[in-house]
Amino acid sequence: MSDVKRRVLSIQSHVVHGYVGNKSATFPLQVLGFEVDAINSVQFSNHTGYDVVKGQILNETELDELFCGLESNNLLKCYSHLLTGYIGDVSFLRKIAEIVKKLRSEESKIIYVCDPVLGDNGEMYVPAELLPIYQTVIVPLADIVTPNQYEAELLAGMKISTESDVWKAVDWFHEKGVDIVAISSSDFGQRGELRTFLSKRNGPRFALNIPKQGTSISFTGTGDLFASLFLAHSYRKHPDQLGYVLERTVATLQAVIKRTIAEIPEAMLNGKEAPNYSQCELKLIQSKADIENPQVVLKAEQIK
Amino acid sequence: MSDVKRRVLSIQSHVVHGYVGNKSATFPLQVLGFEVDAINSVQFSNHTGYDVVKGQILNETELDELFCGLESNNLLKCYSHLLTGYIGDVSFLRKIAEIVKKLRSEESKIIYVCDPVLGDNGEMYVPAELLPIYQTVIVPLADIVTPNQYEAELLAGMKISTESDVWKAVDWFHEKGVDIVAISSSDFGQRGELRTFLSKRNGPRFALNIPKQGTSISFTGTGDLFASLFLAHSYRKHPDQLGYVLERTVATLQAVIKRTIAEIPEAMLNGKEAPNYSQCELKLIQSKADIENPQVVLKAEQIK
Repeated sequence: MSDVKRRVLSIQSHVVHGYVGNKSATFPLQVLGFEVDAINSVQFSNHTGYDVVKGQILNETELDELFCGLESNNLLKCYSHLLTGYIGDVSFLRKIAEIVKKLRSEESKIIYVCDPVLGDNGEMYVPAELLPIYQTVIVPLADIVTPNQYEAELLAGMKISTESDVWKAVDWFHEKGVDIVAISSSDFGQRGELRTFLSKRNGPRFALNIPKQGTSISFTGTGDLFASLFLAHSYRKHPDQLGYVLERTVATLQAVIKRTIAEIPEAMLNGKEAPNYSQCELKLIQSKADIENPQVVLKAEQIK
Repeated sequence: MSDVKRRVLSIQSHVVHGYVGNKSATFPLQVLGFEVDAINSVQFSNHTGYDVVKGQILNETELDELFCGLESNNLLKCYSHLLTGYIGDVSFLRKIAEIVKKLRSEESKIIYVCDPVLGDNGEMYVPAELLPIYQTVIVPLADIVTPNQYEAELLAGMKISTESDVWKAVDWFHEKGVDIVAISSSDFGQRGELRTFLSKRNGPRFALNIPKQGTSISFTGTGDLFASLFLAHSYRKHPDQLGYVLERTVATLQAVIKRTIAEIPEAMLNGKEAPNYSQCELKLIQSKADIENPQVVLKAEQIK
């Protein structure tokens, strides 16, 4: 029997149509050899950008029920990772904290990958009451966090105006006990680029510039995909390999976005026609080969 | 843009841990290039064979809500297939019938693959009231059905005692309008074998013997896996290729079961130790290569 556990408890949204939350995270993880035990925090017909959204929301009592089912069958020891993404409710987030602690008491080596989804581009899209809970309760429990620049600003409680600020914010996470901080995107690239950052506590630091793929459309689910790919590629890697982990994560992401864009009509891409959200869903299933074997072209630089 | 739609609306159970229902069907379909829009008819911690089961059941009103969400966003035309498996409730099953009709009115070419899950080995595990609805409403809407022998007996309303009876039962489905009937397992093999049957209306017929893999454990989720693999391999195949479709479906199934058995302790396999259900879960994720490239060793015979 294999002595390497590769099983993720992933608590995220489920949408019937399209790719966000668990729909974005599960397939890549499975393709990369991880079993995914998915707790779906909602079941919605589609993501919230569409004209209509219908479906059901799991409350913290129901989350607790599912978790107790796992616990009663003595299944809590089987996880190598916990992964959480978008959470929209205070009670649910507090339940997550209990779950982390319980999982860790059963399996001390479990890695908690927290994507602290709060907002993007200067706009919060979760209730503001979640922020202090993330800051004081959730982040201190996490081993790996994957905020974007805006989320890092909110959590660290500082404006990030320079690259030196980036590392100050990163240090805030490390001081809270986080081992690895990946800033999934920021404004600090060259013109037409995003820049990602990666830091290990008491270890190496990296940055990687990502050319924006020319379109006015912002794709949904890319952050969830980043977190799941980063989880998979970083597992059991030596700190010296972290640059390569980031390169592989970004390579797959870029390939998925490129394939997605290739199927969107030109008029929609350049904003002359309103985006059809279904046509803009990530071409994730069609990108299996890019998940299995990311073709690295963008190289990470080690920051001295 | 690709003119071949490969997108399945799959209405089945979801379990957090393990592989039945949508957890058994989705990964193989995705690996074989199909997008899967999964409506989870339940969210349970695990399958019902475990000591404890916790979770939530979707009712027909909530199913309708999700479906209306898809409809409101004009997404019903995007499906090549509808796949349904275990359904435990009369109202839910009646709602499925409405959904098939609505989907077909939007996309006449949609293929409805119905796994009429009723029971196994002479024991029904759904309420008896479902049977007449399957017989008179659901089966006549299906293009492909994948009952086991016992389910074929219940539906066709006859005891299947000889191989000639098998074809009589198969004809009952064809007379109801079903294009392809796959009897996923039966007692008519040689000693130590199961026998599967496949028939196309006004087309060829096949049978294939499957050696039982020596164990007293019956694995959960294999029927759901059969239906999803058959869906994927049969899509757009010429009737003459149907034997090969069955061979590939069975090849993957056998490989998954073999890999699953290989990780179960001997004492559990031979019944000296009680089965640990978690250890008996299908090793589906680990079988990606067998899903992508089934190694056919068991050949189908064409029945004259």
